[in-house]
Amino acid sequence: MKSYIGVYGLGVMGQSLALNIANHNYSVAVYNRSTDVTEKFAKDRIQSRKITPTYSVEQFINTLESPRKIILMVKAGAVTDAIIESIVPLLSAGDILIDCGNSYYKDTIRRNKSLLEKNIHFFGVGVSGGERGALEGPSIMPSGDEANYNLYLRDLFNVISAHTEDGSPCCDYIGPDGSGHYVKMVHNGIEYGDIQIICEAYQLLKSVLHLNNEEMADIFEKWNKGRLSSFLIEITAQILRRKDDLTDNYLVDMILDEAGQKGTGKWTSMEGLDSGIAIPTIAESVFARCLSAIKPQRVQASKQLPLPKQFEVEDKEKFIADLEEAVYASKITSYAQGFTLLAEASKENNWDLKLGNISLLWREGCIIRAQFLEKIKQAFDQDANLTNLLLAQQFKEEIINAEKGWRNVVVTAIQNGVYIPCITASLQYYDGYRSERLPANLLQAQRDWFGAHTYHRVDKPHDQSFHTQWEEF
Amino acid sequence: MKSYIGVYGLGVMGQSLALNIANHNYSVAVYNRSTDVTEKFAKDRIQSRKITPTYSVEQFINTLESPRKIILMVKAGAVTDAIIESIVPLLSAGDILIDCGNSYYKDTIRRNKSLLEKNIHFFGVGVSGGERGALEGPSIMPSGDEANYNLYLRDLFNVISAHTEDGSPCCDYIGPDGSGHYVKMVHNGIEYGDIQIICEAYQLLKSVLHLNNEEMADIFEKWNKGRLSSFLIEITAQILRRKDDLTDNYLVDMILDEAGQKGTGKWTSMEGLDSGIAIPTIAESVFARCLSAIKPQRVQASKQLPLPKQFEVEDKEKFIADLEEAVYASKITSYAQGFTLLAEASKENNWDLKLGNISLLWREGCIIRAQFLEKIKQAFDQDANLTNLLLAQQFKEEIINAEKGWRNVVVTAIQNGVYIPCITASLQYYDGYRSERLPANLLQAQRDWFGAHTYHRVDKPHDQSFHTQWEEF
Repeated sequence: MKSYIGVYGLGVMGQSLALNIANHNYSVAVYNRSTDVTEKFAKDRIQSRKITPTYSVEQFINTLESPRKIILMVKAGAVTDAIIESIVPLLSAGDILIDCGNSYYKDTIRRNKSLLEKNIHFFGVGVSGGERGALEGPSIMPSGDEANYNLYLRDLFNVISAHTEDGSPCCDYIGPDGSGHYVKMVHNGIEYGDIQIICEAYQLLKSVLHLNNEEMADIFEKWNKGRLSSFLIEITAQILRRKDDLTDNYLVDMILDEAGQKGTGKWTSMEGLDSGIAIPTIAESVFARCLSAIKPQRVQASKQLPLPKQFEVEDKEKFIADLEEAVYASKITSYAQGFTLLAEASKENNWDLKLGNISLLWREGCIIRAQFLEKIKQAFDQDANLTNLLLAQQFKEEIINAEKGWRNVVVTAIQNGVYIPCITASLQYYDGYRSERLPANLLQAQRDWFGAHTYHRVDKPHDQSFHTQWEEF
Repeated sequence: MKSYIGVYGLGVMGQSLALNIANHNYSVAVYNRSTDVTEKFAKDRIQSRKITPTYSVEQFINTLESPRKIILMVKAGAVTDAIIESIVPLLSAGDILIDCGNSYYKDTIRRNKSLLEKNIHFFGVGVSGGERGALEGPSIMPSGDEANYNLYLRDLFNVISAHTEDGSPCCDYIGPDGSGHYVKMVHNGIEYGDIQIICEAYQLLKSVLHLNNEEMADIFEKWNKGRLSSFLIEITAQILRRKDDLTDNYLVDMILDEAGQKGTGKWTSMEGLDSGIAIPTIAESVFARCLSAIKPQRVQASKQLPLPKQFEVEDKEKFIADLEEAVYASKITSYAQGFTLLAEASKENNWDLKLGNISLLWREGCIIRAQFLEKIKQAFDQDANLTNLLLAQQFKEEIINAEKGWRNVVVTAIQNGVYIPCITASLQYYDGYRSERLPANLLQAQRDWFGAHTYHRVDKPHDQSFHTQWEEF
């Protein structure tokens, strides 16, 4: 009996996805280059007859019903290319390759184009939610040919994906070629921002209010009952309460403050720069990880560059309320940047992204899951051509209400020398975006002076350029 | 009689460079694809018999003495590739191609490699200073094979480059392959930062202190006599005084506040992200241009998102003094970021960059020329392994003295809703860099929770990684 679909690659994610598929009554063949991994998986985790372990690529391919549907869950980059190259000769016209790894969207566009010439349908699929998501239901962002998606993948992906309380799947067709991986990339960039904003709140509570871990956990728990309710706020409270197994301390205090990164936040930030879309909150979240990673330098610098005189916060309760405003307003601003980037990519690539629907895909299953995302859907429902989330009625009202507390938090951090780059950059973005007049007139004059780059005038049509002979030489 | 060197491409920069070379008594052949450009150049600007106009590539190539030395001053990217491809068949082994355009350094590395196989010596040369610099003496950052550089290019480049008051040329061999264009790229990124920081000072003087253009010009003129003395501060004062030809207003007020950009600031920022080096000041200068460019959106937003209640500054003189501190401290921090990036690239590519010498190349001829750069040279002279300019004795002292005013300026901007992203990001970088403890411990706990990314512990060696089972599922 042949299997409906195959999973190539039995890392943590591949195993979980295969189990998830089988749990939903689809037959699935699995293959891994190291046979012992497959053997161990078969021995330890396969209880369902729906899963067929295979031990050679040929066996794997021959086990699949036609058209073959093969999920690649392997390392992004050269490994993915090598595996595609190795299995394509074994495929038939009309077969379907599905890259569920964290591939760079331009690679997906390239692979899609090259495989199309060989009559192989290629899908780039963003999958978010880590090991647990892959097993119990991830957020899925699929892209490729829509007709084939509807015929062969939609029902399966819908059923294995996460679902919201009202039963909607956190999976929806995104668009052609690289759009699924693009959306996943921006999701990860937004995730970087969310994480860093929470870390900055923690830093302020700890170093300005001098709260202990239990007191901080109480605050995050309280926030999790309100509009900040989200997976990341929830686990933050639980992390803060966790005791260390090796010492009598809290675990979080024993963890070294050097952040790792796998690259998708960086990709998103580079994409913003490359396409001319300001996403400073996301970029600062990446730079914050870079600065955290050079701890020995920071320790050295901390001994030479003193902390400024500290301003004690008198009304702690008020500051905590202000901080909730700052975190929430920064979050809105960060998402506003991310969605502006998505809108630009949609336009540039003719992807016709449904931005409101995309926000719904992230409500469950993925790292940034939150009630908050429904408000984004509502904003796009009210105005499909919304240029920036900051101009949506609800966000506008919320951010105007939050503004005073937000400014107070940033001012306190600046006065006390606390590094909160994302909350600060968000507020600065907000102030830049709402500035009718920025000093770029002086900038253009300088560029015209030294590079004859020309400028436009406020009193002349935009299609007229002017150059001034600023000096004689 | 054959010419010592050729210039391919007679745009503004090519013409100026050819005239500069001839003015220093080197014979130079020139060629441009459009013959009429060459004819016009010959008619209007060639007064020296040292310049030979040519009207076909073959004639151009045959006019050059052996080994041929050909400067390409053409559009970066595909045009440069096409021209290289078209002339290489006409060259002989040992001939020298010199790309003086604004090429991306990875293209230069690629071209160098491919031309080496054909026994053509390729040089990637950063040239800064615009039209006037090219004519009267630019800052030159050459890279390629050192022996051939010393034999054929060093004397010429030294004599046509800018010179400091003490007679040193603003030209020095940088290193192999793409290093010259890399250094030029970072120069441009730093230039973006310098320009934006000045614009932010202008914005604060205008919108917080409500000064008029003449008052502001006075301040920049005064600053130009002190430690901020530089080409950009100098022209800012002159720009502010310039009256419009078409109206009775000052010209700067008639220029539209939408910034253009040609890409090198963006490249630098992307490079920082890609190599894991925090350069938020430079990235924010790029994002500031992006935000300035969407003026219609800003106008719309300014009507919906109100300015906060304004805090009037009582002691204007003190604020102006604080602002000078803020601009200077931000400048130090921005250069600290740029030089950290150069150090990382040097390490990654085995370029062995002489960072102190590089700072000297920028003292004259280029856009960021300033006395300030000598302090950077001194810092590296005192400690060749300096990890960050913020830790150099002189900068450390200056920045500690500037800190109070710097914080005051940022706080005032935040309170008044003024967008000064580079001054703010610089202060935040400073505070992050001098923080012994950042909240990345919480971040690592989160990453370990949802992605099993593991963490290090403060009480265990760095080569040990730990994972916690944060929840059961």
